[in-house]
Amino acid sequence: MGARKGRAIFLKAFPAGMPTADLFEIRNYEAPSPKDGEVQFRAVWMSVDPYMRGRMRPDIKSYIPAFTLDKALDGGVVGQVLESRHPNFSPGDYVVGFEGGWRDYATVSGGGLQKVFPALAPLSAFLGVLGMPGLTAWSGLTQILKPQAGETLFVSGAAGAVGSLVCQLGKLRGLRVIGSAGSAEKCAWLEKDGGCDVALNYKNYRDASALTKALAEAAPRGVDCYFENVGGMHLEAALNCINQRARIALCGLISMYNDTELAPGPSNLVNLLARSALMQGFIVSIYIPLAGEFAGEVAPLLAQGKIKFRVYDGLEKAPEAFLGLFKGENFGKAVVRVGPDEA
Amino acid sequence: MGARKGRAIFLKAFPAGMPTADLFEIRNYEAPSPKDGEVQFRAVWMSVDPYMRGRMRPDIKSYIPAFTLDKALDGGVVGQVLESRHPNFSPGDYVVGFEGGWRDYATVSGGGLQKVFPALAPLSAFLGVLGMPGLTAWSGLTQILKPQAGETLFVSGAAGAVGSLVCQLGKLRGLRVIGSAGSAEKCAWLEKDGGCDVALNYKNYRDASALTKALAEAAPRGVDCYFENVGGMHLEAALNCINQRARIALCGLISMYNDTELAPGPSNLVNLLARSALMQGFIVSIYIPLAGEFAGEVAPLLAQGKIKFRVYDGLEKAPEAFLGLFKGENFGKAVVRVGPDEA
Repeated sequence: MGARKGRAIFLKAFPAGMPTADLFEIRNYEAPSPKDGEVQFRAVWMSVDPYMRGRMRPDIKSYIPAFTLDKALDGGVVGQVLESRHPNFSPGDYVVGFEGGWRDYATVSGGGLQKVFPALAPLSAFLGVLGMPGLTAWSGLTQILKPQAGETLFVSGAAGAVGSLVCQLGKLRGLRVIGSAGSAEKCAWLEKDGGCDVALNYKNYRDASALTKALAEAAPRGVDCYFENVGGMHLEAALNCINQRARIALCGLISMYNDTELAPGPSNLVNLLARSALMQGFIVSIYIPLAGEFAGEVAPLLAQGKIKFRVYDGLEKAPEAFLGLFKGENFGKAVVRVGPDEA
Repeated sequence: MGARKGRAIFLKAFPAGMPTADLFEIRNYEAPSPKDGEVQFRAVWMSVDPYMRGRMRPDIKSYIPAFTLDKALDGGVVGQVLESRHPNFSPGDYVVGFEGGWRDYATVSGGGLQKVFPALAPLSAFLGVLGMPGLTAWSGLTQILKPQAGETLFVSGAAGAVGSLVCQLGKLRGLRVIGSAGSAEKCAWLEKDGGCDVALNYKNYRDASALTKALAEAAPRGVDCYFENVGGMHLEAALNCINQRARIALCGLISMYNDTELAPGPSNLVNLLARSALMQGFIVSIYIPLAGEFAGEVAPLLAQGKIKFRVYDGLEKAPEAFLGLFKGENFGKAVVRVGPDEA
């Protein structure tokens, strides 16, 4: 009871450009004794996410505060409650929250935590497959793309946290799945474990025209469903290959996010018209009311081992996992094991 | 009975660039005696349409054959049957078809004709409000935009054959309607008769940013529904003003049709994503199964005089009506009266 000593990851300095491993340091860290309404837990799994890069820019005001150098880094975490001064939680409960990652022990407000149950799915899944990335993938697929068995699904950013689930859920629905990713290693993984019939390494294609040709070969019956995470030449190539009544779920346009000026859109939007196709943008929050239906479908698939994702082992691996987001090294949702499932 | 003498409009030469009145000539023309399966009728109304310009390019192969200089021009028409050798039609019947326009009397295959009924609506309406332009307007509105009373509808190409119906049908549904057109005269008509609360003369706005500002002022609660006929800066401005869960019906992108190279798309497609908005392309043919439902709603509105459109009077006015399509002079669907309703 009371304060608890462990380790945490700190930033030594803010990165300029691409972050590097030498900016991170593992230090001793003491989680304080919980006050009224607070919960102390030990971390089991932590999440690394692209948005954390934005918190390493103290000069920029955002919707979420920047990290500071004298405090532990922070982020999503699954933990087991050690001490609770919040009525919803008791010692031994498993919880998931968006605060208290990057450390062995954390003390946080109970209001930001939700209980999770190891019997339902592997605990790490509550950060990915059963978390926001999973709900995003499932919602785009089931609420917008509405694929019929035998149709062809194209997924850009296919090796990402969301894309890798779209591919796997699509394959389980009997679709022909074509994924695009940025390395030969990712493409090999997508074809072996990631649900893709064909994975295209987009770095091999210099422009939309070359990517169109490759996509048309991989999708001989055309593209019925496109799950868009990237934008740019991916969207243009997909629009060239869509069938009549195709559906496009616009989930991300990450190729544009670092542009200083907004790049023009695709010159072939007219294909939406000529092929009576739909393009629906969405943000996952509008589908939160469907979280129960989602978990009901996806949790059993996880329990049966039908959904694959990679993990990193050990708190000290957290910087490597985080840096992997930007080097294009991660496969699926990246999570880091901080402690054993059962203490 | 037999062949019948009248007048028809011929082309003297093919236009290079914008067509001019001196290329057209009215000549004597004899409709031949109908053979088996054919019908001879006298024209009551004829249609002029932008696609006819494409038929004046004999060098270009298209889905529809080019006109020839030694035959009468051709196009959509409402007529009254004089002689029938087709089992579905009898003398006195009114018919609509896509062949036999631009002339007083025509002899055509009965397979391309449909009966129409003057009791249902003014005969000219079967070329416009109750024809393909009407089905296009109604389908985009009811099947894609699905507006709720009190929402705001923006329509580009608002004075066109389709746009003018979208505006009027939208107003009758209790929407705030903002239209865009290319002259002060059209805008005045749109605000007086054409169903618009505010009509914007897009020629007053130099770029998407200026049009965005005007649209935002005209739509203080944002744009919920956008009926797109034009593309270019119109689409960009609309995407800037759309509300959460907005719907865009992509019906035409006429600003791009004369481009020699495809212009880039809008740079703000990301707004579709951020606002969870839908963009649905369509071609009217997919909604032909709804033609009955459409006519059931729109024909009574026509009969009650609640839908306005302009007409040209006299076969000799056909070239003027046709040229008006390209000069931006027409209001709504342009039709030409060739003969009296009842002979």
